[in-house]
Amino acid sequence: MKIKKLILILVLFTMMLFSHKNASAQDKKMVYRIARLTIDSAQLENYKALLKEGAETAVRVEPGVLSLYAVYEKEHPTHVTVFEIYANKEAYEAHIHSPHFLKYKNATKDMVKSLELVDVAPIALGAKPGAIK
Amino acid sequence: MKIKKLILILVLFTMMLFSHKNASAQDKKMVYRIARLTIDSAQLENYKALLKEGAETAVRVEPGVLSLYAVYEKEHPTHVTVFEIYANKEAYEAHIHSPHFLKYKNATKDMVKSLELVDVAPIALGAKPGAIK
Repeated sequence: MKIKKLILILVLFTMMLFSHKNASAQDKKMVYRIARLTIDSAQLENYKALLKEGAETAVRVEPGVLSLYAVYEKEHPTHVTVFEIYANKEAYEAHIHSPHFLKYKNATKDMVKSLELVDVAPIALGAKPGAIK
Repeated sequence: MKIKKLILILVLFTMMLFSHKNASAQDKKMVYRIARLTIDSAQLENYKALLKEGAETAVRVEPGVLSLYAVYEKEHPTHVTVFEIYANKEAYEAHIHSPHFLKYKNATKDMVKSLELVDVAPIALGAKPGAIK
């Protein structure tokens, strides 16, 4: 009976630690951004392939790149939106100096007709575990 | 030795099944959408609380609501963007008839000054497992 209680206390304590860590990380340090781009229609397929490669590499190899969701509008396929989440400002700085980002940036510089970077803050970030990847 | 081989084959077969399931689900059935809203500045805090409650409830209780990311622009806090992923069209239809969505919709109808719903398709959806929630 005593051991069971001890285990229960340990489990609750661990849960508290983790929930605290998540809350403080989400509220204080993470960087959230939306990038809105317009792409040259003649180079759209090439652009999408380069963006896909760059985004997937970043999430795979950079510990501080938490999420990159890139989509295009069905009615205006040259309108691209990227929703970006970084662990903190340092992770974002590391990302824009990474070889895969510089490769993407250089390869797509004549494809991007406009680029708007919008800093955002979260209202709700709901995702089922494992639902996307 | 024979049992080990059998286990290895079973594991590989299971991985094949799952990777196929993921690929087909992502490509063919999922519904991706961006909602862009402008909110009455006098009611912004109330609106954000209602959106947060509605979005978190939907992801928690509806099996087909995979992800709802809601953010506001730091420079224009009344500009809200929601990035939505549903398992399929039926899941989206179920969502907009759910009690929590109808509660949100009714409670916020005089707070929303403009609403644009944009159907999108994925280029890359990279997210670290467990990074957000």
